[in-house]
Amino acid sequence: MNTIDLRDQLKQKKQAYVQDEILSSAAALFAEKGFRAITITDVAASLGYTKSVVYYYFKNKNEILWQIFNRMHQCYEDTIVAILKEELPAGETLKKILFQHALNVMQRKDWTAIYFRDESELEELQRDIMRKRKREYDKMIESVYERGVAEGIFKAVPTHIAVSGFMGMCNWLHTWFDEKGKLAAVDIAATYVELMAGGYQK
Amino acid sequence: MNTIDLRDQLKQKKQAYVQDEILSSAAALFAEKGFRAITITDVAASLGYTKSVVYYYFKNKNEILWQIFNRMHQCYEDTIVAILKEELPAGETLKKILFQHALNVMQRKDWTAIYFRDESELEELQRDIMRKRKREYDKMIESVYERGVAEGIFKAVPTHIAVSGFMGMCNWLHTWFDEKGKLAAVDIAATYVELMAGGYQK
Repeated sequence: MNTIDLRDQLKQKKQAYVQDEILSSAAALFAEKGFRAITITDVAASLGYTKSVVYYYFKNKNEILWQIFNRMHQCYEDTIVAILKEELPAGETLKKILFQHALNVMQRKDWTAIYFRDESELEELQRDIMRKRKREYDKMIESVYERGVAEGIFKAVPTHIAVSGFMGMCNWLHTWFDEKGKLAAVDIAATYVELMAGGYQK
Repeated sequence: MNTIDLRDQLKQKKQAYVQDEILSSAAALFAEKGFRAITITDVAASLGYTKSVVYYYFKNKNEILWQIFNRMHQCYEDTIVAILKEELPAGETLKKILFQHALNVMQRKDWTAIYFRDESELEELQRDIMRKRKREYDKMIESVYERGVAEGIFKAVPTHIAVSGFMGMCNWLHTWFDEKGKLAAVDIAATYVELMAGGYQK
């Protein structure tokens, strides 16, 4: 590798790092005060940067929000696709998905709060894209549920009601999970899976 | 009753009616666009009133939000207190509470959306009062759960995890329940209770 390539690589790494840093910091601020209450100056100040640094990476506040939504989705989708690739029986697959979904919500509490509260701040086209991705995500879980019903191991309740219920139980964690609290994320996720599976298994 | 009393009564009734009307309309607007995006002028315009009519009833936008929160809580508390008064066995009590909580969320979707999204817009003292009321509400449900555990009919998982999970599943309904959709609120609530009870009953 020649010096120019190396320099380019280092530059790219640094840029990716700063971008991540801005997104995390913005997410924490949006989650705490709400998207509308926060300015680019606030985001920059929280990192000790000037506004122009933030504008170098993101054209405006909407672009930051949009990237937060995209990364969230990517993270959730990657998790589920990896589980589906294991091709386990429906019972085991659903348990793994619910456990991991609950963990994702708790591990990215700020992002989750924004995801569910500030969707209305996206542009219409962005919102449509996000809703489509969300529907696809839910459908992947619904098809696992339907597989379990077909195999006679899950209760034959309307799939959409069941899956929305489980997602709600998990997503709600962002409102009350406390990373400094007594209850560890993995224990909460395990208890949730026990309660949910006890409900949907025949 | 003399004429003055009657006139007073009618006036009070009319005022209560207009107040309700303003709160409902404001709730619909806040739920759709977010609290910050809406002005008193928007609220007035949606009812064909001038701003001054709204200001006659509410001193500012915060006062409207505060009343929305108060009424929500009152509605939820009244429901649960009425169920507890029946002094039914723990199993039946919890099922009734969860069913009714889910229904309340669906029947007041706008209010629920605001309740969970715009809490940060309340003043600090108001927020403290609301959080206290919410904790008391949750505690009433938790004590029913603990009664069921003590009687050996509910699973002995940490009460707070279980109850927060059930509340999450129900509260989440405000994000997806569609009053014009195929699924009726009572059917969804019944399915939810079936799934939850199946999970927590021993």
